[in-house]
Parts: sequence; C-alpha cells; structure tokens
Amino acid sequence: MFKINDNYLKLEKNYLFSLIASKTKEYLKENPDVKLLKMGIGDVTLPLPKAVVSALNKAVFEMSKKETFRGYGPEQGYPFLRRAIKGYYAEKGVNIEEDEIFVSDGAKSDLGNILDILGKDNSVLIPDPVYPVYVDTNVMQGRKIVFLDANEENGFLPLPNEKLRADIIYICSPNNPTGATYNREQLKKWVDFALEEKSLILFDSAYERFIEDKDVPKSVYEIDGAKKCAIEFCSFSKTAGFTGVRCGYTVVPKELSVDDVLLKDLWLRRQTTKFNGVSYIVQRGAEAVFSEDGRKQVDNNMAYYKKNAKIIMKGLKECGISYTGGKNSPYIWLNCPKGKDSWEFFDLMLKKAHVVGTPGSGFGKNGKNCFRLTAFSDRESTELATEKIKELINKEFL
Amino acid sequence: MFKINDNYLKLEKNYLFSLIASKTKEYLKENPDVKLLKMGIGDVTLPLPKAVVSALNKAVFEMSKKETFRGYGPEQGYPFLRRAIKGYYAEKGVNIEEDEIFVSDGAKSDLGNILDILGKDNSVLIPDPVYPVYVDTNVMQGRKIVFLDANEENGFLPLPNEKLRADIIYICSPNNPTGATYNREQLKKWVDFALEEKSLILFDSAYERFIEDKDVPKSVYEIDGAKKCAIEFCSFSKTAGFTGVRCGYTVVPKELSVDDVLLKDLWLRRQTTKFNGVSYIVQRGAEAVFSEDGRKQVDNNMAYYKKNAKIIMKGLKECGISYTGGKNSPYIWLNCPKGKDSWEFFDLMLKKAHVVGTPGSGFGKNGKNCFRLTAFSDRESTELATEKIKELINKEFL
Repeated sequence: MFKINDNYLKLEKNYLFSLIASKTKEYLKENPDVKLLKMGIGDVTLPLPKAVVSALNKAVFEMSKKETFRGYGPEQGYPFLRRAIKGYYAEKGVNIEEDEIFVSDGAKSDLGNILDILGKDNSVLIPDPVYPVYVDTNVMQGRKIVFLDANEENGFLPLPNEKLRADIIYICSPNNPTGATYNREQLKKWVDFALEEKSLILFDSAYERFIEDKDVPKSVYEIDGAKKCAIEFCSFSKTAGFTGVRCGYTVVPKELSVDDVLLKDLWLRRQTTKFNGVSYIVQRGAEAVFSEDGRKQVDNNMAYYKKNAKIIMKGLKECGISYTGGKNSPYIWLNCPKGKDSWEFFDLMLKKAHVVGTPGSGFGKNGKNCFRLTAFSDRESTELATEKIKELINKEFL
Repeated sequence: MFKINDNYLKLEKNYLFSLIASKTKEYLKENPDVKLLKMGIGDVTLPLPKAVVSALNKAVFEMSKKETFRGYGPEQGYPFLRRAIKGYYAEKGVNIEEDEIFVSDGAKSDLGNILDILGKDNSVLIPDPVYPVYVDTNVMQGRKIVFLDANEENGFLPLPNEKLRADIIYICSPNNPTGATYNREQLKKWVDFALEEKSLILFDSAYERFIEDKDVPKSVYEIDGAKKCAIEFCSFSKTAGFTGVRCGYTVVPKELSVDDVLLKDLWLRRQTTKFNGVSYIVQRGAEAVFSEDGRKQVDNNMAYYKKNAKIIMKGLKECGISYTGGKNSPYIWLNCPKGKDSWEFFDLMLKKAHVVGTPGSGFGKNGKNCFRLTAFSDRESTELATEKIKELINKEFL
C-alpha cells in the first residue's frame, strides 16, 4: 500500500495568504458595497515596462514562424539571459560566471527546490518572523528547524549567536516581512560565522533593487568569502512586475562544494531532471529588463513604489506608530497600536478602515503584535489607505 | 557542517540527452560541413498554432495596461484554463472537477515534484525501457526501484505480475520511448491490479493526442476505478508545440486518499508553497489550444507529424527493420539491424547517415539493441533521413 509523505501532516493547516483571502472574501460577502484597499500581499500593480512588452511581442512573433521557432531551451536558462544577469552582477562589483547562474520560474520555486540537493539531516536556522515558505518547505522534508528571534530589540536584524548553530541559515535582506536590511558590517558577521561553522547561507535577495543606501549590500557576494558559503536567490517579480509573468534566478558559485562535489553540479542535475527551463518568451522579456530602456522604466517603477512607501511612513509617523522598513524595502512593518494582537488589528483594519494588510503573527511568534503594509499598491489607494489608517488609529487608540 | 543529499551521488553521471548532444557536438567539430538530421530528441519543429499566437499577443497586451495587468495568479492555474481542460476530459467521457486539475510549467516538473508528497519508503515499479526522469527522480529521493521488463516478447507492453508488487507504478501510454500503447483491456488489468494492491499509478499521458485507435484510452480515467488509484500527467508540449512555451497539467482526483488525507490537498499544499503558478501569458496561450480554431490547427499539426511517422515506418519496412510505435505515437522504436548495440548503431547513424537518433540503452537494459526515432522533424528532413537510413542499412547490413 502506498504511503504519503507524513511530514505534510505536520504543516500548519492554513497558508497565511489563503486565510487572509478567505477572511476578506467573507467580509465582502456580507458587505458587497465596500471597496477594500489591498495593502497586504506583496503583489505589484504597475503594468509591465514597455521594453519588456516589446521583447515579449517580438518573442511571440518568433515562435509563430517556423524559421525562428524555439522548442526546448537549456534547463538552466538561455545564454542571452544569463549573460545579462552576469552583467548586472558585474555592476555591483561581483564577478559571477554564466554557468553559476540558473534561470527559473521564480525565487519561490528555487527556494523550495534547492532543498532537494541538501541532506535531510541538516539543521536549519530561520529568523522569526519570516517568509513562511522557508519554514514549510523544510517541514515538508522533515528537517529540524531552530528559530532566531528578530525583534524590536535587535532592530529585526539578528546577528550570529554561537548558541544557535545550524547547517543551513536563511537570510532575507531586504527582509520580508520586516523591511529591515543588513549593512555590510552585519552581513560580514553572518558570512564569517557561516565560514567558521561550515554552514550554508540561503540568501534571498528578491528585494535588492529597492536598496538605496550605499552601505547595504545588494548581493551577499559583495562580502568576501560569501562565494564559499552562500547561494543567492533573486527575482524579476517585484522590480519589473513579473509576479504574473514568472521569472527568477539563482546563483550557485563554483566555490561551493562538499567533499569535492560542487553544489552547482548537483543543482544543474536537479534542474535538468525535474525542470524544463523557463518559457523562451518570458526569458526574452526578462532580458529586456537589463536593456537601457528597460532599466530606466524599472527605475521609474521603483521610484513610484518608493514614493508610496514614503506616504505610508509619513502617515504612520503622524499618528505615532513605530515601524521598520520602508526605506530600502517595499515593506513597512509596524507595531500594532497599544500592543494589539496582529489578527485582531487585521480585523479592525479590514472592518473599520477597509484596508487589507498582513498580520505579523502569520510570519512567526515575533510578529504577533506587528503588521505588514506594502508599497505595491497604486498611488490613490496608498494615499486613501494611509488616511484611513490614520483616522482609525486616532479614533480607536488615542 | 552542511551535508548534501547523498542520493545524488548514486545517479548515473550522464543524462542521456546531454551525452547525445556532446557526441554530436564533437562530430560536428571534426566535420563542420555536415548537416545533421535530428531525429532523436522529442522536440517539435512546427511553430505555434495561430490561435495560440493570437492569445499570447492579447495576453501580452493586457499585461502592458494597468487596467488589465495581472500579478500573482492562483498556483493551481487560472479557472479559465482549468475549465477548458475539464471540457477536454468531458469529451473523452471523463468527468474531472476543476479543483482536481493543476496547471504547471510542464509534465516533467510535475512528474518529479509529485514525489514530494509521497513517502520515501514506497517501493516503485518502473518499466524498462523508460523515460529516464522516472528513475532519476526516485533515485534522488532514495526510493527502492523494481524494474519491469518491456521487450519484444510482450510487445513492449508488460502486464501486471504478482511477483512484482510495488507501492507506486509508472505507466506511460503512448509510451516514451517505445511508442507502444495499452488498449482498454490491458490498461484495465493495471487499474485492477493497483486497486487490489492499493498501489498508486503515475500515468503519463503526454502523448495522448496521437492516439487514433478507438480501443486505446486517451486517459487512464476512461477505466473504471482509476480515479481511486491514479494520478495523470499531461502536457501541451508535443501537441501544440509548447516545448519552449512550457505548460502542462496534472489531475489528482478527489477519490485518491490515504487515511482520509486527500492527495489533491497535499498536492495543492505542495504547489502553493513551492510554486507560483504558470505565466498568465502562457496560460492564455494554452487556453487557445482548446478553442475551435486552436483545435483545428493542432489537428493539422498532428496530421503533419503522423505523416512523418508513416514515412519512417514505410522506410523501415522496406529495408526489413522491425519496430513498435509510430501509429498512436510520435515515436518509432526500432530493433537495431543484426542485433547491433544501440550506442554503436548511434555512432554509425551519426557518422554514416548523418542522422541523430536516440540509442535505446539510454532508456534501460531492454533498450540495448533498440533505437528511437521521432516524427517531430520537418517533412524534408524526415524524408531525407529515411532515405539515408535505408541506404545505410542496405549497405552495411545486407
């Protein structure tokens, strides 16, 4: 008789965003005339940059003609796109070879799938609060997880702690959900720690394009030694609006090995066996993100979302709410007024302000009195939501 | 210190198609003027159907406007596409609900990833010869594999054997690589066996659209009881030319459960956690495959490839080479002349006929004297390759 993977039974039943969706749906069913302002899930609202649209159209045209049609492509991504990504790293002063770059359908897929090449008996260190995917994907494979507290005291930027050793360490900077970012000195502490402990860092840099401060690395490889201990995951989702187009990339440096087995070779083997590459059309769209026009257009989108973040931050300051993030990040992580529970605050925001945010406890115990807002909405909704939040707080908590 | 997944070290070093590619590359380096005829890898050559191209263009346009832009979609696929797939099943007389259908970036991904939800201690029955992905994905997770001989004696269609019990059973019909297809009576034997043994059938129906015979089921669910024991994997790759566009789907019926845990719920959890859905643009393209125009155009493509298969079959008959497949399948699986070893025959075909095929031993021990040709090339190459194969065989083996 066949057996299921019992580890799945250990997962928390509701995925955070599904629960938010069902609560929202229920509220809208009872209040069909209310227009909710969605400031929760990290989805973008600006359409694709023009350069991307042109590239997609061109690729579709190529696929319509026998002479230019493309079938199976390389599982690790077309050289044209890997070359563009290599160039992007070079601008950050980081030399990455094309065969260390793996194009995928998104950072979420890779962050989950990378665990395939790692042993089940690795211990895992995950900050709390955290993007739930890090936890769930490890629970699914039965790994032991140790949590590292990120809280107001350490500015949601916990540093290595010799009492909390682990084989695999997750770092997300700019952080989802807290918006906090490690500076160079802090990140160096993590890299040095990993090198000493022979730990592997899984570095999620999906939000690197939001970084403005010179002192905040955009890639973990800006830190000496990181190529010997870190895999980096990145995405076109939040910068170029690819949440519905699906493209990301993962860097596995050739310096990363265990007993002369290169991790990049294992990952290539995983991808060639269990993946067939990203749509050619999508890869051409992603390539255009690095073109001169593409860059300008993405910069404009970034400026738009950053302005949203500023509007939210100003509003929160005006009603005395403290927060982290918002500057080098699209996320604003606020402390619920008067230490309110985050799901209670969620309900209040939903019902009284008609704003949908993300309750901090969905990201871990240290988020239980926090709440995540994002800068990804449109200007009008952001302004309106900010006003409504201010009203709510002034009315209910002052 | 972090550890790799040691199971990866048990994998055969070279992935079949990579080895073919490197042998081919080497030959071309020494003989730069030779034009090789690629009759090996199962990649299509006809461009995307017009209906698909229109739908892709329309979707790209939608993504370029704020009002119609789409971000994250449902991980299991948009309702519009799942509805179309449901309708396609209904035409085969099979009732599948939308929430039993999961859209993905291809059958290869799903065939590998489905193992995530199944226990490591399941035994696995895999026919030999076989699509290497079934074997490698199980080796990666350390499962015990039992092989089932498919050979000339059983027409490459092995039937259940009580001495070969297993928890998970792979069936691919029309088969890759042999082109053999189970008829209704034979497939019923497998379903009955699985029900009795409480085994799970992983049914790969990627080539179902090539089936002409009324007696050959296009879906395992045409057999009574299959919903209680089978997951079905399908793809747009070979029919609508999506090998470079990337879209497939998997059906997990709600009748499939272990101790009241529904497999479809586990799979949904896997997909929502480790996957972010298929590109919206691609899903619109896939939807168009089921439109009236799309169907006609796909039928025309099918007719084109089927004609290729006929040309190859006729050529093989003329020089006395026996084979299976070719009729309800794009694959022609031939017996190497005079029992020649398949890699030797590969080299001979490459060097003397300038035809690249796939050596049978790449698919398992029972393929060691067989060779796979595909009907996916263009007409001209197919005709030329057939002539060259005939010449080679008449010259070298008669």
